[in-house]
Amino acid sequence: MPFVHPRFQVVADAFEGFARDEPGYSGQLAVYLDGVPVLDLAVGEHLGPDDVTGVFSCSKGAAGLVMALLVQDGLLDLDDAVAHHWPEFDAAGKGDVTVRQLLSHQAGLTGVEGGFSEDEYIQSELAAAKLAAAAPRWRPGTAHAYHGLTIGVLMEELVRRITGSRLQEVFDQRVRAPHGADFYLGLPDEQDHRYRDVLKPLQPGPPVDVDPFGHLGLAFNSTAGFADAGGAPLDLLDLPNQRRMRRAGISAAGGVASARGMARVYAAASTGLVLEEGGRADALLSQETQLAFAQTQVYGPDLGHGELGAYGVVFMASHPGNDYGSWRVFGHNGANGSIGYADPAYGLAVGYVPARAEANGTASRNGRLSAALRRAALQARTPQG
Amino acid sequence: MPFVHPRFQVVADAFEGFARDEPGYSGQLAVYLDGVPVLDLAVGEHLGPDDVTGVFSCSKGAAGLVMALLVQDGLLDLDDAVAHHWPEFDAAGKGDVTVRQLLSHQAGLTGVEGGFSEDEYIQSELAAAKLAAAAPRWRPGTAHAYHGLTIGVLMEELVRRITGSRLQEVFDQRVRAPHGADFYLGLPDEQDHRYRDVLKPLQPGPPVDVDPFGHLGLAFNSTAGFADAGGAPLDLLDLPNQRRMRRAGISAAGGVASARGMARVYAAASTGLVLEEGGRADALLSQETQLAFAQTQVYGPDLGHGELGAYGVVFMASHPGNDYGSWRVFGHNGANGSIGYADPAYGLAVGYVPARAEANGTASRNGRLSAALRRAALQARTPQG
Amino acid sequence: MPFVHPRFQVVADAFEGFARDEPGYSGQLAVYLDGVPVLDLAVGEHLGPDDVTGVFSCSKGAAGLVMALLVQDGLLDLDDAVAHHWPEFDAAGKGDVTVRQLLSHQAGLTGVEGGFSEDEYIQSELAAAKLAAAAPRWRPGTAHAYHGLTIGVLMEELVRRITGSRLQEVFDQRVRAPHGADFYLGLPDEQDHRYRDVLKPLQPGPPVDVDPFGHLGLAFNSTAGFADAGGAPLDLLDLPNQRRMRRAGISAAGGVASARGMARVYAAASTGLVLEEGGRADALLSQETQLAFAQTQVYGPDLGHGELGAYGVVFMASHPGNDYGSWRVFGHNGANGSIGYADPAYGLAVGYVPARAEANGTASRNGRLSAALRRAALQARTPQG
Repeated sequence: MPFVHPRFQVVADAFEGFARDEPGYSGQLAVYLDGVPVLDLAVGEHLGPDDVTGVFSCSKGAAGLVMALLVQDGLLDLDDAVAHHWPEFDAAGKGDVTVRQLLSHQAGLTGVEGGFSEDEYIQSELAAAKLAAAAPRWRPGTAHAYHGLTIGVLMEELVRRITGSRLQEVFDQRVRAPHGADFYLGLPDEQDHRYRDVLKPLQPGPPVDVDPFGHLGLAFNSTAGFADAGGAPLDLLDLPNQRRMRRAGISAAGGVASARGMARVYAAASTGLVLEEGGRADALLSQETQLAFAQTQVYGPDLGHGELGAYGVVFMASHPGNDYGSWRVFGHNGANGSIGYADPAYGLAVGYVPARAEANGTASRNGRLSAALRRAALQARTPQG
Repeated sequence: MPFVHPRFQVVADAFEGFARDEPGYSGQLAVYLDGVPVLDLAVGEHLGPDDVTGVFSCSKGAAGLVMALLVQDGLLDLDDAVAHHWPEFDAAGKGDVTVRQLLSHQAGLTGVEGGFSEDEYIQSELAAAKLAAAAPRWRPGTAHAYHGLTIGVLMEELVRRITGSRLQEVFDQRVRAPHGADFYLGLPDEQDHRYRDVLKPLQPGPPVDVDPFGHLGLAFNSTAGFADAGGAPLDLLDLPNQRRMRRAGISAAGGVASARGMARVYAAASTGLVLEEGGRADALLSQETQLAFAQTQVYGPDLGHGELGAYGVVFMASHPGNDYGSWRVFGHNGANGSIGYADPAYGLAVGYVPARAEANGTASRNGRLSAALRRAALQARTPQG
Repeated sequence: MPFVHPRFQVVADAFEGFARDEPGYSGQLAVYLDGVPVLDLAVGEHLGPDDVTGVFSCSKGAAGLVMALLVQDGLLDLDDAVAHHWPEFDAAGKGDVTVRQLLSHQAGLTGVEGGFSEDEYIQSELAAAKLAAAAPRWRPGTAHAYHGLTIGVLMEELVRRITGSRLQEVFDQRVRAPHGADFYLGLPDEQDHRYRDVLKPLQPGPPVDVDPFGHLGLAFNSTAGFADAGGAPLDLLDLPNQRRMRRAGISAAGGVASARGMARVYAAASTGLVLEEGGRADALLSQETQLAFAQTQVYGPDLGHGELGAYGVVFMASHPGNDYGSWRVFGHNGANGSIGYADPAYGLAVGYVPARAEANGTASRNGRLSAALRRAALQARTPQG
């Protein structure tokens, strides 16, 4: 049931323009305004409106909602030492590292030499034990680099230590299932028929010679990593296309979703969903919690890739190099150009999922959609004469 | 009485070259060396030697001198918590924010959603009350973004709390009036006939789509802002052209000056003025105070616009992206390309005011004048054979 | 006795390619893998395999090894206040500056107005006294700028205060002499016949107008500096070509070495040298000490030149703008494009010395050699089928 609220028709036009500009384009876009769906579209052949596919680091947003619930529930304080919850973490000079630093890419634990095996990521207590013993790759708090894979391991361990449960279970029970949303950390077998493969870019970029023991190589696990069923190295973009990986749903990058599912989760988290019986449910996260996780914790050049980056707690922060929303926006994009976020300053909750991997950032499709959505939301909320 | 000391003739030539390069150019340049005027020129039709016009954020330099006097007098310590002087400021996690952070664009109070009205800027206790209640837009001390308008509100509130007087009054009584300088925060009605309108650039830049709830949109008050007499939105460059605004003289951007007036104030502050009766008056600011306010407090990419920025306390610091002086320079430029500063390492005090708004930064006209002035000052202070 | 281990032939080919690409090219390259020499080559006319020449800031690496030994011996703690060892340093607001900040270019002591004379650098207690009295050029810990010359003065003073000996003596006794390495801080007269002049670039860059009182001008001592025998200003590249300067061996920039000498010292420091009688000597520095000095302490735009920089303790850290090794690499390059470093993640120790000054950084010759060496080392350490 595709639909577009008239005030968002300009956004629908922009989205549908992608299919005109690129033959074979396929993707999904879904938007809530103040808890009400205002746009739900799928275009092209590959991704239908009810299909799901890999959303890569958008998964971090799902995990971030779990961390936010723990803080809101009083089980975790961002200024706690990590070692308070995880005693083995107090090794190699990491005794004073705070949860706040750990969850904003400042702790210097981008990876370990030799990398992690796939099993170590899935049974992440194994990877976590290695990270607990590791020396920080920079002096914690003095720099940041995107912990592309390990931030998931670190969040999963914290959740295990604090709740005794797996992060994926907490997400499913407290966030996904109550809202019937298609945003999975661990796609159940009975839903697997709805999965559509992530398509690779038609023109892959030039090969990059990455030092496997440098910040970037460590962060992308370039010495060990993932393998296909035959043991051949697996391109990161193929990760969710492996059934065992999407079943595991590692919280750094293994999530599977539809645009509608992501928008619904972020609407439930930020504004609450408008109920069929009337009224609006409470938002999962209080205003205070939302601000605490959206607030920019670090901003500057990333020590891995050198471009500007900014992070709140777990979530991406908006900044001049990735201007995806207001100062209160919280969400995350993924390696295929997907994005899921809530922007409470506008009452927006958004999911965008392309079938074929595409570029990220402000100049990207998701960046252009975000800019158009903000303009539309401003007008939609303005009383008309 | 235009004049040029022979050692500064090369600077005069550079300045007069602007009129040759651009038909219709008009502007003022005034320079003191070690407390003595060495250059005072006006070229072109629009701005005569005794005229005054809007100098925008050069106003922050005037306000910065007031803050420096409070510190010098022992009424304010840069390491005080802001809330020590302003108890309502201890809200939304700002209890530990220091005066030092507040006055170097690090406190995350660039603006409020919905912006401020003109009246709230003029009666700035109203805007200050909103900022006191606001959550910081980033974790204070972890990033900086230029507080284009709110830094004035924040300084004004501090001065009110500490002295019981308006910042503008303190500036006038302690800095401007004793030196008879044409550098006003609040142009008196009896001087208003000397005001000349700020001229707009002949070729305005392309329109920029700014998120009104993003760091940049908040900082420039893009959702509310200023209006002309008929209520139409007012371009920032037109602000001082409104009589009520230049009468109010908000300390962020409402100042009115001549180049001569700014140079005189900075000479009085940094080296002291040479007296007609012989000798030189004490500088308003001690060496220690000058260093404390000139010292770079923050350097890196601005979270609003992404370019490198550096600030001392209130004043701009020199850095590779805006190399306007030595490590001891203190001053501020304005949105129209004007600048006022003291560079004690060279004994220089400088004012430059163009009639028509032009670009800022190292490659700008004020940047080229500054480089030429430093060379000339070095030679002028070298004993000749 | 030039030689190349077969697994490093691709690196030798790249090195020898420099001579094909540039008529008149001359240079030295030497490499150890896990304590064993695997490559030792000299090409071209100017620099023979046993010659030595100026290596500029590679000298800082030699001095850094001395600082690391002091820490390893328990005589110095990186978190000590500098003033704990050097009481006069507690002046002008520097009482809380730590050794860690001082040795990672964060203390704001790039230079003094008026600069230092050559004698003050050589008898560095004279320069140190001036720096001890100086106000920091930025708030310590909030920014960094390369202390091109003063970091040597500061290290020398710390060593004097802690050991009573000159840094150069400690280096010679504990590092250079025991390994018979040609890497000198102070070239002995009896070795001076082996010195070959540093050659200037054939096409010098455009003259740069540097503010002598700005961060960059202070750091390069542009107001006083060095003079030739006739008193004429001396280009920095000519410094080691003056016999008195290479005899003094100031630890910031006065070192003289061959590529072989630098590689040997770094191998002894990081992996230990394989002994002729069998076995391998202990590394001079423990794993813990190596990590402590390699760990990135600061990363971001340099306040002097505006480009990204990253430093461990004394040593350069690898970062996207100068990707010369793994997260564990420690070493330093020099103004002529020379470099010396150990990369323990690869078991590498490397020296490269061009006869004619050339560019530095990732895209430089030393950057290309480093990338090739890492690939070769990975393969050389992989068991073959």
